[in-house]
Amino acid sequence: MKYEEILKNISIKTDSKIILLVMDGLGDLPIKGRTPLEAAKTPNLDNLARECACGLTDPVFMGVTPGSGPAHLSLFGYDPTQYLLGRGILEALGVGVEVGPDDLVARGNFATENKGLIVDRRAGRIPTEENEAICRKLNKSLTAIENVDISLFPGKEHRFVVRFRRPGLDDRLADADPQKENKPKTYTRALSGEAEETARIVNTFIDSVSEILKDRTKANTVLLRGFAKYPSIPTMQELFKLNPAAIANYPMYKGLAKLAGMEILPAGAEIPDLFDTLEKHYKDFDFFYIHVKKTDSAGEDGDYDRKVAAIEQTDLYIPRLIGLEPDVLAVTSDHSTPCLLKGHSWHPNPFMLRARTAMPDEVGAFTERNCSRGYFGRFQSLYAMPLILAHAEKLKKYGA
Amino acid sequence: MKYEEILKNISIKTDSKIILLVMDGLGDLPIKGRTPLEAAKTPNLDNLARECACGLTDPVFMGVTPGSGPAHLSLFGYDPTQYLLGRGILEALGVGVEVGPDDLVARGNFATENKGLIVDRRAGRIPTEENEAICRKLNKSLTAIENVDISLFPGKEHRFVVRFRRPGLDDRLADADPQKENKPKTYTRALSGEAEETARIVNTFIDSVSEILKDRTKANTVLLRGFAKYPSIPTMQELFKLNPAAIANYPMYKGLAKLAGMEILPAGAEIPDLFDTLEKHYKDFDFFYIHVKKTDSAGEDGDYDRKVAAIEQTDLYIPRLIGLEPDVLAVTSDHSTPCLLKGHSWHPNPFMLRARTAMPDEVGAFTERNCSRGYFGRFQSLYAMPLILAHAEKLKKYGA
Repeated sequence: MKYEEILKNISIKTDSKIILLVMDGLGDLPIKGRTPLEAAKTPNLDNLARECACGLTDPVFMGVTPGSGPAHLSLFGYDPTQYLLGRGILEALGVGVEVGPDDLVARGNFATENKGLIVDRRAGRIPTEENEAICRKLNKSLTAIENVDISLFPGKEHRFVVRFRRPGLDDRLADADPQKENKPKTYTRALSGEAEETARIVNTFIDSVSEILKDRTKANTVLLRGFAKYPSIPTMQELFKLNPAAIANYPMYKGLAKLAGMEILPAGAEIPDLFDTLEKHYKDFDFFYIHVKKTDSAGEDGDYDRKVAAIEQTDLYIPRLIGLEPDVLAVTSDHSTPCLLKGHSWHPNPFMLRARTAMPDEVGAFTERNCSRGYFGRFQSLYAMPLILAHAEKLKKYGA
Repeated sequence: MKYEEILKNISIKTDSKIILLVMDGLGDLPIKGRTPLEAAKTPNLDNLARECACGLTDPVFMGVTPGSGPAHLSLFGYDPTQYLLGRGILEALGVGVEVGPDDLVARGNFATENKGLIVDRRAGRIPTEENEAICRKLNKSLTAIENVDISLFPGKEHRFVVRFRRPGLDDRLADADPQKENKPKTYTRALSGEAEETARIVNTFIDSVSEILKDRTKANTVLLRGFAKYPSIPTMQELFKLNPAAIANYPMYKGLAKLAGMEILPAGAEIPDLFDTLEKHYKDFDFFYIHVKKTDSAGEDGDYDRKVAAIEQTDLYIPRLIGLEPDVLAVTSDHSTPCLLKGHSWHPNPFMLRARTAMPDEVGAFTERNCSRGYFGRFQSLYAMPLILAHAEKLKKYGA
């Protein structure tokens, strides 16, 4: 019996409440000897650490830098080597497209075609506003193809997401993209016999778009990549018997939470809004995932001071979490985003957990290096959920 | 998607350089309170440790004492529970036999036969020189059997390795060894229908040898065990996109490195020779495995002082490694060889890694017990390669 099956069998419904605060991209490396978390004034996080058991988590395995998909799935208790999300799905979640089990999505580029050749794969990176206007026009003009409803959703510059909606679509499709400029326009093709009908529909769509945009000198056709069906993932209700809610601002994280079966609670754009939403809905759910994005954005920009500020701002609200008296309060990150690297990295995440059953250790401040000496040691993020559930006394005995 | 497939998908070719220094059998236990590594004066290793992230590694899993094969494969990034090397292959690598994909090898004993019975399975442990003379004679007298070229390579006393060379040979063969004295001479038999031709060839070989040696009163026949084909292991080029080189003195380690796709660089017999070779070839490769054997040999002999001396001698050359300014410098061992046990053991290996992206920890000296408090914590050796590759910035993001 494996990880997921074991948890499914031993999880039980209780009244206990769990708060999981995720500070995205929190982990970092020292600059002038201190990481942003070490440099930030975080009296509340540090006080909390003194009541917690602490550790460091690896999102996938040591050395592997995760994308947001694997990093979050792992934290939600899903094996990230087993559940892989297609690029199209993540792109769709990222721009806030609502995706369901009958949907096939793909990432698209508006591109420029001239006499059958793709002369610019990005259509000169048209302005986002022009992209939005083209998508509006296409959504108005396109009709259903073989009963498949089709919608386009603009992204930045030349990028968009397309959603094909009808039962029975198949995502085993090759990219409709010549990959290089001055190559002939490329259609998709079925990678499995069962995908042939879908391939025909997608190719009819490509021709219809080209027809509608034929008078344009640029951005007059589309390339499609990363075809993906809505992944079938067991929900946190099924696996853990939770009634979970997500409090997040960014579409990608709302989408990932929805995939895991969480209810998405409306929240404003700023950090305090997240905590207002939590307090408002605290009685209605037993698991809350709260996502703070600013720590990651600052790391991606290599902006050490902004990362320190984002940590310090979040620290102010820790007493409000404690004030709710959750049975388990866990604070961690999905992955590290060191300012030095200006991007996600493989470095482990600081993790702390407060519960009446948690072993207090000697960690006196919530930092990467302090957590490395914590009671939990170093472990895969995948085990954060079992730990959280156990400390919430939501797991019964395994075996007799 | 699993470990190896993930790494294959995310590894990229870069200009960064990696040095992996392996001090064989380094880990030990205290005698009068100190391990050899604790007792040795190692100012250079200790200075390096202060710039490194440190940890302890388990070659297979906690409690398992590895042979040289699993210990090294794990360190090279291969799951030692998946890739098992036949004894014949390891014996062949150990005596420096060149082995390729068309080869079948086995370990052999010269034995004494009398009236169809094996009366001495080791032929009275004949002197090595006599063994060498018999092998020379057989290599001259034996002709190809069904187009299979056959070569014998002497080992110590009564032991040798035999290599059968022709495409299409099969290693699913039972040992040709009665296991006890005064039992009838034993032939091999096919353990699979496809191995029947090979069994016939091997048995013809046994009869030919007995015929050539029939006038001898002892060492007049052979026993064969551990038939093994050259294992098919993906190379470090395929898995990690490395251009790797090995600097080692002993045939076993050269053989293991060659299996993993490393180029074997010529090196003299003493410790300084290894570093001369490294400097000479440093521009030509991006990964260097350097193997120091003396620490293990001293441990195998239970010679504490000699182990201390081997460690101190290696320490002298650490500045030359640092002087090359590799992007990643890792120092560790393949397994422990405690003087107390005079053999390989299951104790974990001290591990340290220096890179611009490594989190400095509080480890101030490179010892077993200090490394146990390092930032990497305790991990399987299998993850040393992903960690090394990540810190060399040779791994891209996993998932979106």
